[in-house]
Amino acid sequence: MQETRLDTARIRAARQVIDPVFLDTPLYRCEALEPYLGCAVSVKLETANPVRSFKGRGTELVASELAERGPRAVVCASAGNLGQALAWSGRGRGLDVTVVASRHATVAKLDRIRALEAKLELVDGDHELARERAADIARADGIRLVEDSLDIETCEGAATIGLELADAAPYVDTVLIALGGGAMATGVGHVMKALAPGVEVICVQPLGAPAMTRSWHERRVVTTDSIATIADGVAGRCPIPEVLADLLLVADDAVLVEESSIVTGMRMLLEHAGLVVEPSAALGIAAVLENRDRFAGRHVATIVCGSNVDMAAYHRWVGLR
Amino acid sequence: MQETRLDTARIRAARQVIDPVFLDTPLYRCEALEPYLGCAVSVKLETANPVRSFKGRGTELVASELAERGPRAVVCASAGNLGQALAWSGRGRGLDVTVVASRHATVAKLDRIRALEAKLELVDGDHELARERAADIARADGIRLVEDSLDIETCEGAATIGLELADAAPYVDTVLIALGGGAMATGVGHVMKALAPGVEVICVQPLGAPAMTRSWHERRVVTTDSIATIADGVAGRCPIPEVLADLLLVADDAVLVEESSIVTGMRMLLEHAGLVVEPSAALGIAAVLENRDRFAGRHVATIVCGSNVDMAAYHRWVGLR
Repeated sequence: MQETRLDTARIRAARQVIDPVFLDTPLYRCEALEPYLGCAVSVKLETANPVRSFKGRGTELVASELAERGPRAVVCASAGNLGQALAWSGRGRGLDVTVVASRHATVAKLDRIRALEAKLELVDGDHELARERAADIARADGIRLVEDSLDIETCEGAATIGLELADAAPYVDTVLIALGGGAMATGVGHVMKALAPGVEVICVQPLGAPAMTRSWHERRVVTTDSIATIADGVAGRCPIPEVLADLLLVADDAVLVEESSIVTGMRMLLEHAGLVVEPSAALGIAAVLENRDRFAGRHVATIVCGSNVDMAAYHRWVGLR
Repeated sequence: MQETRLDTARIRAARQVIDPVFLDTPLYRCEALEPYLGCAVSVKLETANPVRSFKGRGTELVASELAERGPRAVVCASAGNLGQALAWSGRGRGLDVTVVASRHATVAKLDRIRALEAKLELVDGDHELARERAADIARADGIRLVEDSLDIETCEGAATIGLELADAAPYVDTVLIALGGGAMATGVGHVMKALAPGVEVICVQPLGAPAMTRSWHERRVVTTDSIATIADGVAGRCPIPEVLADLLLVADDAVLVEESSIVTGMRMLLEHAGLVVEPSAALGIAAVLENRDRFAGRHVATIVCGSNVDMAAYHRWVGLR
């Protein structure tokens, strides 16, 4: 296989740096879901930690590096989960964390970023504008810019999920990974290809935010003009070329799903697995719902990557009909 | 300290027998809950496994013992979680599992017991009648009766939670443990007293099912005539003398909480921690809510012991007001 930017030995070493509270997350079969999906389903649960998403794995690497050497201040753009995780990792190490987010971001995520004592700056626009503003701040203040999916720590942090999957789930046929900027997809994908090459790696993105999936299929960066999805955690318009290059090496497929399937997936995870998840974390279940024949009789593992939701919206999505 | 029936070395050895899917569960601080509770709160999450409760720790011990030597058939009375766990552990080892439950038990629990291929017998009465019927079946058929909290495996299985708490949470001042029959309370309590004697062990029971708590305070078995709680997992009327004797040695206190506090606790765990829990799993939070001064500024760990709920009831309890 051609080489990605990621390094398996470095990913193994990352386990020594990341706070154990983010590692060795639950991985278990949810049989109660299976009659509804027609395949065996295992859940890799990334929500039972202090920031309720997998992003702490990557921010622990960034923050520990900065604490050792480098500027004591750091800025990132975030839909909320990266920012919350960076705020958590930075607070524990005395770093000065700034997060730039869209004014339309999930309120619960913004509240947690503030509660974790980070500076929060809101922009009147979407995540791509937040990325520009974060880069401006980094340049002006001479501080570290953390770019999700581009910075190797964000990918290799997420990749530690792959180590746990490869170790504990040799029986899995397919791993379903939410696709946004690509940190988790390239990270987990890299490890699966290196350590469990028989496992199929499928990325899942909302039809309303399809830029990276289209890019993967066309093998070149395709940007989009607008976003129309509730899955705020994966809602980008401008794929990063280096990340796409890696994704082309490690993903076996990238599929798009309807909003209604995301909502059905969230409701199923609540009703049959007792799990509160944010929309991005239901993408894997949505993919099974839309491709029943493809997965029939197989064993899929889906990474439940976050649970930061605004409760009013959540009740609206999953409320009893 | 006087000796309980439990043995710390045997509890350590139990970790080698229990399927790892039940071990090393998430333990993490939930800061988003803290402004509402006035103390630091860590959650020990026992719901992210194939049976959505801690009971698998004990049934793994029972079932592996039976699979090695002993009858291939086993019966237990259960409010649902023990039965589901025994069905899971028994299925994997080719055992013939019968569960006796009240006709009024949580439907979701009964459905899962059936789905796991156990024989399910329902009685027209409460859990105490189910216990009698299970004993009758065991006698008549000459099969193993598993008695929750009396059988040492159920206590020592639950006690492995204590090992994880003692190892990972030296900063905790108090452990809050749901009290029903007493397996979890005596198990975790035994380990805390042995390995982390500075940690306060507080048992929490609903006012509507207070038999064991009253027994603990009066230092003799007190039975009650009826049950009035939604916390089905801890709803017994007839404490077991041997379990009470152990509980008297390891618990620092036993408190009773109102139904309304249990519901508020469930709602808080949903809204601020993203956790679906069954009523018994909210007892710890309920205890903090009712004793704010006692816990102010302290660090409590609460064991979120199960998440098997009927969704309609759950929505009714936690639904947006």
